[in-house]
Amino acid sequence: MDGRRENTVIGLDPGSRKTGWGVLREQSGVISLLNCGVIRPKAADFSSRLGEICSELSRILQEFQPAEAAIENLFTCKNIASALKLGQARGAAVGICSSMAVQVFDYEPSLIKKNLTGNGRAEKGQVSFMVGRLLGVKESWAEDAGDALAAAICHLNMRRVRKFNI
Amino acid sequence: MDGRRENTVIGLDPGSRKTGWGVLREQSGVISLLNCGVIRPKAADFSSRLGEICSELSRILQEFQPAEAAIENLFTCKNIASALKLGQARGAAVGICSSMAVQVFDYEPSLIKKNLTGNGRAEKGQVSFMVGRLLGVKESWAEDAGDALAAAICHLNMRRVRKFNI
Repeated sequence: MDGRRENTVIGLDPGSRKTGWGVLREQSGVISLLNCGVIRPKAADFSSRLGEICSELSRILQEFQPAEAAIENLFTCKNIASALKLGQARGAAVGICSSMAVQVFDYEPSLIKKNLTGNGRAEKGQVSFMVGRLLGVKESWAEDAGDALAAAICHLNMRRVRKFNI
Repeated sequence: MDGRRENTVIGLDPGSRKTGWGVLREQSGVISLLNCGVIRPKAADFSSRLGEICSELSRILQEFQPAEAAIENLFTCKNIASALKLGQARGAAVGICSSMAVQVFDYEPSLIKKNLTGNGRAEKGQVSFMVGRLLGVKESWAEDAGDALAAAICHLNMRRVRKFNI
């Protein structure tokens, strides 16, 4: 496999109004930020918003060619209505990744927080601060992009641990 | 718009294990069945199954070029766990349709049943029987494909009513 592609990962934080994304590349143990942002579908109707998530994410995957994607898993939700909305946004994002040969890895939200800050219950601000520190850049991203970057950093760390243990 | 495309609609009944689909074409008020089937993802992991739904559905949309899709809406579910699973499968299917310029129309399950049988609480078997009658073919499809066809027939009927009322 092309080493460049193999070392590039995308983190995702899906939602029907805002889907955060962040692409990282690891070279010789150094993680660098390629780009990040938030997909904000413009359509009024829900189905079209899902379509915009698919189209925009597909464009991002084509541009950066990540081999893997990291995303928070979703086993619970505050109520059925939000589970259905969030589930659909997540399904659109995960489906596009998988259909474009980007392998998707799920992580517990608390694992991501612990991986970055040492505390599984860390506040969002603390996680975002550590994302900036670990990437060596000033944290100027939107909250959803920061969450996506946190998932991507966690994945790169976990991947290193897994390789080490083989 | 190409009349052929405009008169072709796809019905969908999404699920992570089985996603029913059925493509119909209406010409001079006569509805005919182009094809129907069930996408049965083979992968063990959930994310890859969503990817298979996207890839397979994308292939079907490219083959039949429907202008519109009909699908049951989803405002409730028996519990949060199934809402998250079903929501993700639906999001993958709807997202792919919308991103491929296939306009998605949602219908209440009870409206679809009433539209086909006259009874909003009709049994599945009765709906499937009426699908066969209305298409003038022997009902030999899997249950999920039958549900998808029912949504597509309902959409064609509702579309005719809407045009008539303009």
